Amino acid sequence: MDLEQGDRIRIEKNDEVYEGVVMPSTTKHVVIKMVSGYNAGIDPDGATITLLGKNKMKTRAGTTHKTKRKNDLPKVSILSTGGTIASKIDYRTGAVTAQFSADDIVNAIPELTSIANISGKAIYNVLSENMKAEYWIELAGAIAEEINNGADGIIVAHGTDTMMYSAAALAFMLKTPVPIVFVGSQRSADRPSSDNAMNAIAAVRVAVSDIAEVCVVMHSTTSDDHCDIHYATKVRKMHTSRRDAFHSINSTPIGHVEHPDGKIVTTLDHAKRGNCELQLANTLQLDCALVKYTPGASSDILSYYIDSGYKGIVIEGTGLGHVSTDWIPTIKHAVQSGIPVIMTSQCLSGRICDRVYDTGKDIMEAGAIEGEDMLPEVALVKLMWILGQTQDMNEIRKLMETNICHEITERSLQ
Amino acid sequence: MDLEQGDRIRIEKNDEVYEGVVMPSTTKHVVIKMVSGYNAGIDPDGATITLLGKNKMKTRAGTTHKTKRKNDLPKVSILSTGGTIASKIDYRTGAVTAQFSADDIVNAIPELTSIANISGKAIYNVLSENMKAEYWIELAGAIAEEINNGADGIIVAHGTDTMMYSAAALAFMLKTPVPIVFVGSQRSADRPSSDNAMNAIAAVRVAVSDIAEVCVVMHSTTSDDHCDIHYATKVRKMHTSRRDAFHSINSTPIGHVEHPDGKIVTTLDHAKRGNCELQLANTLQLDCALVKYTPGASSDILSYYIDSGYKGIVIEGTGLGHVSTDWIPTIKHAVQSGIPVIMTSQCLSGRICDRVYDTGKDIMEAGAIEGEDMLPEVALVKLMWILGQTQDMNEIRKLMETNICHEITERSLQ
Repeated sequence: MDLEQGDRIRIEKNDEVYEGVVMPSTTKHVVIKMVSGYNAGIDPDGATITLLGKNKMKTRAGTTHKTKRKNDLPKVSILSTGGTIASKIDYRTGAVTAQFSADDIVNAIPELTSIANISGKAIYNVLSENMKAEYWIELAGAIAEEINNGADGIIVAHGTDTMMYSAAALAFMLKTPVPIVFVGSQRSADRPSSDNAMNAIAAVRVAVSDIAEVCVVMHSTTSDDHCDIHYATKVRKMHTSRRDAFHSINSTPIGHVEHPDGKIVTTLDHAKRGNCELQLANTLQLDCALVKYTPGASSDILSYYIDSGYKGIVIEGTGLGHVSTDWIPTIKHAVQSGIPVIMTSQCLSGRICDRVYDTGKDIMEAGAIEGEDMLPEVALVKLMWILGQTQDMNEIRKLMETNICHEITERSLQ
Repeated sequence: MDLEQGDRIRIEKNDEVYEGVVMPSTTKHVVIKMVSGYNAGIDPDGATITLLGKNKMKTRAGTTHKTKRKNDLPKVSILSTGGTIASKIDYRTGAVTAQFSADDIVNAIPELTSIANISGKAIYNVLSENMKAEYWIELAGAIAEEINNGADGIIVAHGTDTMMYSAAALAFMLKTPVPIVFVGSQRSADRPSSDNAMNAIAAVRVAVSDIAEVCVVMHSTTSDDHCDIHYATKVRKMHTSRRDAFHSINSTPIGHVEHPDGKIVTTLDHAKRGNCELQLANTLQLDCALVKYTPGASSDILSYYIDSGYKGIVIEGTGLGHVSTDWIPTIKHAVQSGIPVIMTSQCLSGRICDRVYDTGKDIMEAGAIEGEDMLPEVALVKLMWILGQTQDMNEIRKLMETNICHEITERSLQ
C-alpha cells in the first residue's frame, strides 16, 4: 500500500490494534500519531494495514491562498511567536514543534482573508515554555509598530502553555486604541480535532471588532460552537489538553464569538476602539520570583531570593493568603531590604484577605502587600512591570493595589 | 446600651453604616466583625447604635451536652488539629484563631451525638498554614491508635488551607478498615453563614458509613443541601472564602451526603469497611520541594535545592508538563545525583504527557518522571512518602507511576 504522511490508517499486529495518522519516519517502522496524542512505531512485517482516509491536511494546506487586497476590509497584523497554532511535526523526535510562519497560518485558513486584509510577521519561532520577559518587551514594541503603521487590529499567535503570562504582560505594557488578540491552539493541525482554524477565525473577528483590549480568544466548550474572549489578566489555562482549557478566573469572559456566524456577544464593559492614544511602557524588572508555599517549607527559599539579588517576590500562599508563622520574619526582612512581597493564593479563585486570621494579620504587619483577587501569575507579571516603572515602595504598594487593566475586580460581598 | 460580645448591631456614624457582630475590644472603640469577614473599630461618640439581635452563639455554646453512651451507636473519634471549625476570636488581634477542643465541637453541635458515640482528642491546636509533615506523621500514629482501640470511624477536624496536603499524606500512610474523614469549615462559628455544623454532621455520617477511605467531606454548593465526599488525593481548595471551595480535580467525588436527611449517595468505587487490616507506613522524607515554573525563571532554583541537600523535587510545569529548554541540563544533573524530579502541571486539570512536544521528550530523556494526572501538591506528598520507603531510583519511578490510593486515575482517551 502506498502510505503518505497524513493518511489515517489502522494497523493490526499480534492482537494489538493501532489507529492514527501516518507520520514521517526515518526507520523501516510505520510511525502513527494516535488520537491520544501518542506516537507508535510499528514494524509493518506481519501487520495488517487498512487505509481509513487519505491525507486531508495536504489538500487544505496545499491550496495556497493568494491574498487579494480588498480596500474596504480592515487591516489585521498576525504576529506569530510559535506554538501549536503554528506547529508541525518535528522530524528529529517525532513530536510537535513550532516551525510555521504567519503566512502559513493564512494559507492554511483561507477563510481569514474574507474578514480582513491580513499581513503576517514571524516575531519568534519558539514553543511557549521558552518564552520569557525579554521576548514580551520586544513583542510589545513590534505590536506598537504595527499599530503605528495603521493596523486596525493585532493578533498574536502564541503557544498555549505560557500565553496567560505573555498576554498579561502585554496588557500592562500597552494602552491600545485597537484590539490586541492572543490566540493559540491546543491540538495541532495534523489532528482531526484541531481547534486552530476556528480559534484563528474567531480571533480575526475580535481583531476587527470594537473591543480595544488585550485579550485572549480560545474555545469555550468542547463543541465547535463558540470561542470566549477573556481579559488578558483574568485568564488561565486550566487543563493540559482539552480544547476548552482556558477559563476566566474571578471574572466572566468579556464575551464570546459565535461560530460559524461570527456574531460577537459581549457581557462585560471594555475599552472601545479609538478611545485612547497608543501608549507603550515596556520596561520590566526581570529579577522577580514566584514562590509557592507548601506545608513545612523552609523560609530559606525566601532568603535565597533575597541574597541572590531578586527585586520582588510573589508568594503563592494558602487560603486567604497565608504562610506558616516562621516565614514572617523573613518576609519582614525582605520588605525592610526594599524587596516588595506580594501575597496571592494557590486557591486561584477568590480574594486575598489577611485581616481575618492572626497569621494573616502578622503577615500584613511584616509589610506584605495583599494581591487582592489577582492570579499569582498575573501578580508576578504586574510586579515585574511596576518595578520597571518605580522603585518607591509606597508607589509600588499603591500600584499593586490599584486596578490597571482589569487584573483586580471590585470587592464584592461574597 | 448594654452591648455584649456576639450581639448583632448596626452603627451609623458620619453617613457611614456598619453592621456586624460585636467583638472584644481593649480600647474605647466598638469593634464589630462584618459579614465580609472584616473587622471595623468605631468610636461610639456621636454614633447611633441599633441592636439587631442578641448573641445566639452564647446560648448554643452554653448548652453543655452531656454525652449519653448509647451502646448501639458506632464509636467515632474526633481528632482536632485546629482550624476554623474549631476556632474563636483572638483577643490580641481581633482575628479568628484556633482555640477550641474536640469536646467544644461536640458541645456546640449536639446533633452529632445522635449519630455516634463520640469521643474527642485535641492533637494540635494550630491554624492549618502551620501544619507540617512532622505533624502528619504523629497524626497518622494517633489515628492508628484510635482504630486499634476500637474506633469505628475517625474524624480529623482540620483547617481548610492545607487540609488537602494533610489528607493526602494520611491516605499514603494508612491502609484503613474504617472511614478516616477530614472536615473543616470555611466560615467560623461566629458568622451567621458558618458551615461548621453541617460539615461536621456530614462528616460523622461518613465516619459511620461503609466508605473505608481517607476522604474529605465539605460543602458541595453554596446552598446547605449536601456535602461532597472527596478522595483525599484528588481534592483541592479552589476558592479563598466560599463554602463550596473544595473540588475534586481529575475525578468526580466519591459521592455526597444529603442534608438534613443524612442519606449517602456514592458514585465511585471505594474500599469497604473491614475489608483490610490496618497498616501504618508513616515514614516521610521531609526534604522535598515543590518548584513552580514561570516564564524565564532561572534553573538556579533547581541547583539551589540540589546543593541544599534536598532529596526530591516536584516541578509544577506548564501545559502538558514543560519547562524552558535551559532547565533540562539541571534536571538531568538532579536525576544523575539521585534526586528524583517529578513533572506536574500548573493547569491542575488534565494529564502530564511529555511525549508530544520536543521539549517534553527532552525532559523525559533527562530522567524526569511524569506525574500522570496527579495534583502538584499530591505529587509532592507522594514523593515524601515514597522516599520514606525506598531510595532505589527504579523503585521510586515505579511507585510514582503506580496508583496507590486513587491519586492517579486510569488513562482515558480525552
